[in-house]
Amino acid sequence: MPRKIRMGMVGGSTDAFIGAVHRRAAIMDGEIELVCGAFSSSPEKSKATGRALYLPDERVYGTYEEMIQQEKKLPKGERMDFVVIVTPNHVHHGPTKMALENGFHVVCDKPITLNTAEAEEIVALVKETGLLFCLTHNYTGYPMVKEARHLIRSGALGQIRKVIVEYPQGWLATLVEATGNKQAAWRTDPARSGAAGGLGDIGTHAENLAEYITGLKITEVCADLTIFVEGRLLDDDAHILLRFDNGAKGILQNSQIANGEENDLNIRVYGEHGGLQWKQMEPNTLIHKTQEGVRIIRTGVGNLSEAAQVHTRIPAGHPEGYFEAFANLYRNFALAVRAYEIGHKPDPLFDFPSAEDGLRGMKFIDTVIASNESDTKWTPFHE
Amino acid sequence: MPRKIRMGMVGGSTDAFIGAVHRRAAIMDGEIELVCGAFSSSPEKSKATGRALYLPDERVYGTYEEMIQQEKKLPKGERMDFVVIVTPNHVHHGPTKMALENGFHVVCDKPITLNTAEAEEIVALVKETGLLFCLTHNYTGYPMVKEARHLIRSGALGQIRKVIVEYPQGWLATLVEATGNKQAAWRTDPARSGAAGGLGDIGTHAENLAEYITGLKITEVCADLTIFVEGRLLDDDAHILLRFDNGAKGILQNSQIANGEENDLNIRVYGEHGGLQWKQMEPNTLIHKTQEGVRIIRTGVGNLSEAAQVHTRIPAGHPEGYFEAFANLYRNFALAVRAYEIGHKPDPLFDFPSAEDGLRGMKFIDTVIASNESDTKWTPFHE
Amino acid sequence: MPRKIRMGMVGGSTDAFIGAVHRRAAIMDGEIELVCGAFSSSPEKSKATGRALYLPDERVYGTYEEMIQQEKKLPKGERMDFVVIVTPNHVHHGPTKMALENGFHVVCDKPITLNTAEAEEIVALVKETGLLFCLTHNYTGYPMVKEARHLIRSGALGQIRKVIVEYPQGWLATLVEATGNKQAAWRTDPARSGAAGGLGDIGTHAENLAEYITGLKITEVCADLTIFVEGRLLDDDAHILLRFDNGAKGILQNSQIANGEENDLNIRVYGEHGGLQWKQMEPNTLIHKTQEGVRIIRTGVGNLSEAAQVHTRIPAGHPEGYFEAFANLYRNFALAVRAYEIGHKPDPLFDFPSAEDGLRGMKFIDTVIASNESDTKWTPFHE
Amino acid sequence: MPRKIRMGMVGGSTDAFIGAVHRRAAIMDGEIELVCGAFSSSPEKSKATGRALYLPDERVYGTYEEMIQQEKKLPKGERMDFVVIVTPNHVHHGPTKMALENGFHVVCDKPITLNTAEAEEIVALVKETGLLFCLTHNYTGYPMVKEARHLIRSGALGQIRKVIVEYPQGWLATLVEATGNKQAAWRTDPARSGAAGGLGDIGTHAENLAEYITGLKITEVCADLTIFVEGRLLDDDAHILLRFDNGAKGILQNSQIANGEENDLNIRVYGEHGGLQWKQMEPNTLIHKTQEGVRIIRTGVGNLSEAAQVHTRIPAGHPEGYFEAFANLYRNFALAVRAYEIGHKPDPLFDFPSAEDGLRGMKFIDTVIASNESDTKWTPFHE
Repeated sequence: MPRKIRMGMVGGSTDAFIGAVHRRAAIMDGEIELVCGAFSSSPEKSKATGRALYLPDERVYGTYEEMIQQEKKLPKGERMDFVVIVTPNHVHHGPTKMALENGFHVVCDKPITLNTAEAEEIVALVKETGLLFCLTHNYTGYPMVKEARHLIRSGALGQIRKVIVEYPQGWLATLVEATGNKQAAWRTDPARSGAAGGLGDIGTHAENLAEYITGLKITEVCADLTIFVEGRLLDDDAHILLRFDNGAKGILQNSQIANGEENDLNIRVYGEHGGLQWKQMEPNTLIHKTQEGVRIIRTGVGNLSEAAQVHTRIPAGHPEGYFEAFANLYRNFALAVRAYEIGHKPDPLFDFPSAEDGLRGMKFIDTVIASNESDTKWTPFHE
Repeated sequence: MPRKIRMGMVGGSTDAFIGAVHRRAAIMDGEIELVCGAFSSSPEKSKATGRALYLPDERVYGTYEEMIQQEKKLPKGERMDFVVIVTPNHVHHGPTKMALENGFHVVCDKPITLNTAEAEEIVALVKETGLLFCLTHNYTGYPMVKEARHLIRSGALGQIRKVIVEYPQGWLATLVEATGNKQAAWRTDPARSGAAGGLGDIGTHAENLAEYITGLKITEVCADLTIFVEGRLLDDDAHILLRFDNGAKGILQNSQIANGEENDLNIRVYGEHGGLQWKQMEPNTLIHKTQEGVRIIRTGVGNLSEAAQVHTRIPAGHPEGYFEAFANLYRNFALAVRAYEIGHKPDPLFDFPSAEDGLRGMKFIDTVIASNESDTKWTPFHE
Repeated sequence: MPRKIRMGMVGGSTDAFIGAVHRRAAIMDGEIELVCGAFSSSPEKSKATGRALYLPDERVYGTYEEMIQQEKKLPKGERMDFVVIVTPNHVHHGPTKMALENGFHVVCDKPITLNTAEAEEIVALVKETGLLFCLTHNYTGYPMVKEARHLIRSGALGQIRKVIVEYPQGWLATLVEATGNKQAAWRTDPARSGAAGGLGDIGTHAENLAEYITGLKITEVCADLTIFVEGRLLDDDAHILLRFDNGAKGILQNSQIANGEENDLNIRVYGEHGGLQWKQMEPNTLIHKTQEGVRIIRTGVGNLSEAAQVHTRIPAGHPEGYFEAFANLYRNFALAVRAYEIGHKPDPLFDFPSAEDGLRGMKFIDTVIASNESDTKWTPFHE
Repeated sequence: MPRKIRMGMVGGSTDAFIGAVHRRAAIMDGEIELVCGAFSSSPEKSKATGRALYLPDERVYGTYEEMIQQEKKLPKGERMDFVVIVTPNHVHHGPTKMALENGFHVVCDKPITLNTAEAEEIVALVKETGLLFCLTHNYTGYPMVKEARHLIRSGALGQIRKVIVEYPQGWLATLVEATGNKQAAWRTDPARSGAAGGLGDIGTHAENLAEYITGLKITEVCADLTIFVEGRLLDDDAHILLRFDNGAKGILQNSQIANGEENDLNIRVYGEHGGLQWKQMEPNTLIHKTQEGVRIIRTGVGNLSEAAQVHTRIPAGHPEGYFEAFANLYRNFALAVRAYEIGHKPDPLFDFPSAEDGLRGMKFIDTVIASNESDTKWTPFHE
């Protein structure tokens, strides 16, 4: 009897932001259901969240350790199939490790861990266990990101020369973390967020997107990180020159103090024969520029790549957005779980970011921080 | 013990389009679950759809009559709480009526029925039974539509003078219905779609949106309907002059032959003191124009109305789209069901379109068709 | 010895608006120079304007009659070659007639005259004298308007089906004419503006643009004109259904009370195979839509028509605007004057609006006003 | 007797591009007339250009030396008042110097000279002679650039933190200079263009714009220049990190290989309280962002600064573009010449770029090139 894939959640109590995003994304396509959770380090809050989500009390746990241990005892088909981890960064490594060690697949919010050493351990554990791991670099789930990647792979731009990727936000333009804002508090706290602030929070999305779309690897960086807001402990702005493995050059800039910007992740890629431009705030539009003119590529319109098509749900002109891109990762992960259960490899058309991508993000952070502290222009980015 | 609201679906087999939209919208906020369905007039197709949706076979029915009868026998809490109807137009009235008569609330895809007489019957039945009915004029679920309505209600534009509402599509620019396209086939077939083609399919969305946002009522129309594509049986283009109950004037145009247009529903409203503009293809932006300048109002940014806020899920700059607007109707309907169960009235802040809205849409179709056939300039729109 | 074409101006004193536009447009390409003027009905104001324009006092006249008489006495090459008329509408016919009767070519601001009878007289006089006449429907001078016309002529859209043309402004949303605003005063005064307000001022631009781009003729109209601002004497808003000679349908709307709109003249044309969209506020962009996707056509980019190319002065991305489009009419008129002097016909590639276009505009006004006053739906538009 | 200011041109034969731009810009406002020229190093070409411009043969010279000498002999009021220099970069210093030494004011196309030593000489000479000098950094002439500068000066953004300025073009994405393209040939030739390619051609516009708008000075740069097109001799792409004198950080990037880009000069400035964004390809729009929302500031709309108003010619919605911005420099220069003649200082409201701005641009080029060749991250930018 076919059934939905069963998800257990670590973190994501009702006053968190990203937990609800994951829940909506996970269930959107009817392939996954939430069956249990350890939603908070406070057992009361965890229980209350479970009830708000209509979970039976017995499947709501006080700690992730308890959840993993108890669920493991349930028969397959009843127990959760995978764990999703939506806690602050410093509580990524623990539950991921324990889940993998106990035979559960893992979906983990980005970044993979608090630091590179932890990330390396997770990568090794994923390899060792053969279990599935998805890091939610959600922006790669947009159909027009898939199309951009397809166009570049298929040579539409020729050799890539120049990449400009940006992720400006403005919400931390003042010392919001001192006002009781929980989101701001943990993201600007080295103990919970890691060595990087905005760079880790959003800069790594930009890095991941640039490498995902272009298929190139960054090999050198030259970084200027700033803390603009007095009293803040972590970077809130990053200006970074990039060099890529094929000789292309690039710029990555992210900011949390770009007053008035919302979540303007965007990328421009230029090759020998043309350019592409994509903005997450208008995600269903991909602009293809050549010297002969500009073509507006739209989700659902015309002759798109299979990759774009299988990540689209509705006809053109009905905007799909953030949740749908996020859900594409979950849908693909669900397909991979089903494939896993019959001993198949995941279909690369239905891809999702891996633990290796997560490790690369951690090393990117290390490299940028090293560059920022160096007087030498270029700092190599070692894999 | 709190539980999710339980939904049974009529129509929506896996090769239909709108069924999957409803399913995604219904479950998005974790308040509703699909528990049963009569997904197709073919019992095999219905069964197959049920399995693809991971429903138990015993809750998948061959006909809606069977579904309603069988579900009614189940104990409350196990049986469905409401029926959603996502069949072609000519199969709206039957299941709606039977559901209401058997004590089930109803969500019905638009238009409410095939014709006005049927619609009047449904309106009467809703009143009589006191049950809840939601017509999915989904575009009214967008937060920026709520904000536009709020601004106009609060007098930001002063007295409304001029309304331009448009819904151009291009997908029927050729005789697509002759190529085996199922969506095109029933929408251009008078037996299944009713007396109107594009006017009923999308023109009524424009009419509903204009009245919803402005709070005005159309009182007269002057229509020029066209069938541009040879061999087509129903209108594929409509140009309509409008007059409103406060003296405002308007234009409504919809088209299915506007080659290259996707789903460009948009509205511009001008009052004594300013104007508003909204486009469903960029739904998170509302433009407020005055002679002093232009203000871009964005979902999630700044000091928005409570109505906009409670229909928004994520921070600004992460685009919410078609599914989320649709889901707002379902979320609000779920809240109304919960209120109903404890004997409360629905909270008007969490509104959704009613059977009366559906009847009004049917009368609008009648009026426009009468106007189109008349040599007199103005045809009154009687409620 | 080659020399610049010499222009004499009627109207356009320093406190007028459109006179300065004409002067800049006329001289832009170095083909025309201003040599004399009767700038105002006040001789002092005329003199002062002449001095501000660095004209010698003896070439600044108190009346247009004086100017025409005196200039005629000067030797060819010294005297003006043509007259430009930039007075309010009621002073178009007089100087045009006198100029033509005295052998001077004429450029006239739009509308051609105060009413149709006057316009017919001018058309006849132009034919009789064989002199050159240009009506400054300036919007047809934009390169992307030329490109749109070329694409439609060359069949890129197939048979045209649907035309939406709009010209909303907001500057007369209040009774500005009562505040001492000179521009508003004469434009809303039937004695100086004619039988139409906004319809004549901007609606005829929309009519002219639609017919120019599509090559179609309007054959029937159904109009709803409004005076929204209390105390105003002429229409400030127009909603008009159109039918064209090839069976196409259309909508024309113009407004002066669309609060917050600047000069948003725009047109959308849909044919069997695609659509085109152009907006004068972003005039260097022409959008070509088909079901396969959207192409952005830009002034100066790629393989444009000769018509677009010869009306463009600078490389792509350096915006040409209102003055340059206006100047294209003058440049073309100057070329026609040079051709005239050697007995050649004007080159149709370098076109400009004619007296017949002006007469057509006057008849359009008559027809729309008749329709507005009629209870019959359609009023024929007789040439 | 008032008269127009008289201009003599060096360079700008009919097959050049920028000469015609200067001529149109200079005459646009009726304050300046072209009276003589040495349009080409070929006397025949110069003569032919003079005739095409309707100049008398005796005012068309074979060399700039001849022009300056001969014009000097003419009585004041007949002779040229100033020289405009529109030759390739290596022929800026010579005519500028000679003009100043002979008592003529100078307008010079950018860059001021071929190198810094020459620029210093010109700056000294301007100071010494007290004559007027205008460098045509034309983009500072746009009304919305004036408005942006005004807003920042008036504190609307608070302390500036972050500046992103870009000037991407795509026209040199291939080795165009090898195809006979004259514009490409001299711009990529070190002997005629100087030590920098795109950096000097367009990067200095970006530098000038950033400093002009923000009022800040760049104090350090970290540059990565590239020649992407094989066989090219000068940089065609520049990625530069910036630091400003108030602690702000920035990025400047320019490119001639950004395939499909036209002339997308654009700037974003973020301060403590808000951000501003301007793009020269949509120059009449200035976007003001704050955490409360976005305001679209438009040329001619609402309560603009005096600086914006006096650089605007027509009502809102009628796009002014490249020529008009360029003409603002000339109009202001003409006002300065008139002020000079009566012993007044120029009015700072009617400003134009100076020789010092030109020298700063040359030093910027030197600094960026030094940075590019250095392994040290930051290279100081000494005034």
